Amino acid sequence: MPNTLVLFTLLLLWFSPVSAAPIAIVIHGGAGTILKQNMTPEIESAYRQALTESVQQGYAVLKQGGTSREAVIAAIRFMEDSPLFNAGKGAVLTHEGRVEMDASIMEGKDLNAGAVASTTRTRNPIALADAILEHSPHVMLVGSGAEEFAKQQKLAQEDNSYFQTDRRRKALERAIARERGAVLSEDADDPVELVKDKKGTVGAVALDNAGNIAAGTSTGGMTNKRYGRVGDSPIIGAGTYADNSACGISATGHGEYFIRAVVAYDICARVKYQNLSLQAAADAVVQERLVDMGADGGIVGLDPAGNVIYSFNSAGMYRASVNTNGDLHVGIYKQD
Amino acid sequence: MPNTLVLFTLLLLWFSPVSAAPIAIVIHGGAGTILKQNMTPEIESAYRQALTESVQQGYAVLKQGGTSREAVIAAIRFMEDSPLFNAGKGAVLTHEGRVEMDASIMEGKDLNAGAVASTTRTRNPIALADAILEHSPHVMLVGSGAEEFAKQQKLAQEDNSYFQTDRRRKALERAIARERGAVLSEDADDPVELVKDKKGTVGAVALDNAGNIAAGTSTGGMTNKRYGRVGDSPIIGAGTYADNSACGISATGHGEYFIRAVVAYDICARVKYQNLSLQAAADAVVQERLVDMGADGGIVGLDPAGNVIYSFNSAGMYRASVNTNGDLHVGIYKQD
Repeated sequence: MPNTLVLFTLLLLWFSPVSAAPIAIVIHGGAGTILKQNMTPEIESAYRQALTESVQQGYAVLKQGGTSREAVIAAIRFMEDSPLFNAGKGAVLTHEGRVEMDASIMEGKDLNAGAVASTTRTRNPIALADAILEHSPHVMLVGSGAEEFAKQQKLAQEDNSYFQTDRRRKALERAIARERGAVLSEDADDPVELVKDKKGTVGAVALDNAGNIAAGTSTGGMTNKRYGRVGDSPIIGAGTYADNSACGISATGHGEYFIRAVVAYDICARVKYQNLSLQAAADAVVQERLVDMGADGGIVGLDPAGNVIYSFNSAGMYRASVNTNGDLHVGIYKQD
Repeated sequence: MPNTLVLFTLLLLWFSPVSAAPIAIVIHGGAGTILKQNMTPEIESAYRQALTESVQQGYAVLKQGGTSREAVIAAIRFMEDSPLFNAGKGAVLTHEGRVEMDASIMEGKDLNAGAVASTTRTRNPIALADAILEHSPHVMLVGSGAEEFAKQQKLAQEDNSYFQTDRRRKALERAIARERGAVLSEDADDPVELVKDKKGTVGAVALDNAGNIAAGTSTGGMTNKRYGRVGDSPIIGAGTYADNSACGISATGHGEYFIRAVVAYDICARVKYQNLSLQAAADAVVQERLVDMGADGGIVGLDPAGNVIYSFNSAGMYRASVNTNGDLHVGIYKQD
């Protein structure tokens, strides 16, 4: 009898659509004026390696049967923990010289979402957004109230200095000097300091073997930001959206424009209401609408079949994906 | 020669589309379980009068050639200053017994927008959202940073106690008692305490004689809210959206669902991409999509021709409008 049960289970696994269901993941680490001539081979290689590790960590979750939400969190945590990206450790500094971070996550199966703005102590803001999705009746928490919730949820807390790096401090000093009228050569700017373009963000979108899409985004915002400024990353519909019937999107760009154009949801709406492919919908928003508004940046996304797409109107976008065939792609420049 | 100039100017004015251009305004003061049997004639009359005054103040701005943004602000300021509505003075109390307010405003001509979350001292949060639109490169400011900006802009500041009313304190006490397991008769609830339904908000949408649409929303959020919770009111795309080519919308409802469904922008997207009338688009979102999600609330809006619309799936919505013919309408219940 136990043998029959084992046989039955094996047969069930064999014929289960789960094993054949497509899985895929796509990530970004920010978009902006990323030009090969400004790069050193060492920096470029460091980014390519970090993007590869991030997307592979997310893909491993999917491969092991994990959910798209878990995969998105794994990929984003990696980039938050890396000082290379403007999220978590290595986030840019506010005018006052500290770090204030925003993040959001959304599930396409039921449109559940969690978002946090202006968190200053939670080690992984994406984990806090996820805890809000899972353990709070609310979608969005901000500031000290969000920190209190994070502590109750026993999420790892850090002193604000943990997030701060010399590279970002130098960028802040230069931004403040420019603001005060100093004329500084761009040659001396950090070659990969996207944040002068206001576009440093990380994000991920995944499709799991249950057919569920999840999307997430995390950021430190803009260098030298003031007054509790919040960009598009924690705004559901602007920086992040997921809907199993149409799309998953994570955006990175000049947040103010992305909020006004409701970028992530507008792409999904064009898929739903105009029957466009996700690539065509994304290009219409990123290459036309945003360009008309004078806004640059980009998005990564995938559709319910697991087709991975990128669209950006800036010189480059840090990005990587593993598609439904298991093929890895890593890119920085347009031609990548 | 001067006479010719005068004649020319008169002719220009005569044939100018401006003088004949339609103007209209529509407002709401929240939606929820508003039933006639729970009302006293005095309370009902107080609401009808306040709605009338609010919409007439906004309409007077339009009539005098003011902009739709100025009209929206005038109407919302009136409701913020009135203790009857959950915005400004009379806003609901957080778990800690204080007031934290959110607001947003958007212009349809250029998609400019301003939004504030968790402000605790600015007398008129809609004026702060407007100052962010006008005087800041950002769209959204939150918490103490937003207060600092408000002070720099010399906006009227109040001690938090200014906003607090006995009625809202009683509602908070009852909410906390219920949370702790007390069984309280609904009969003793405030008859017009919408906030137990999580839907207290005020908003306005206007069309001016230059053909520009503006929309704004302001709220104290939910009674007994915690952890810096932010609802849909300050989220561009969720609580507020304006686009001269399609629509102006201000929403009021269970904010978490309104964020997840990107309510205001979804209505505009259906107009733009499905060629629906604004009423049909709003009904599709409010009477179908939100009902499917289990979310109640409603919206007010107007289209580029100045057609005023309401759509709500709750028992009632405080609302008023002056249409392009100058006709005043004030409503509370479905049949109004």
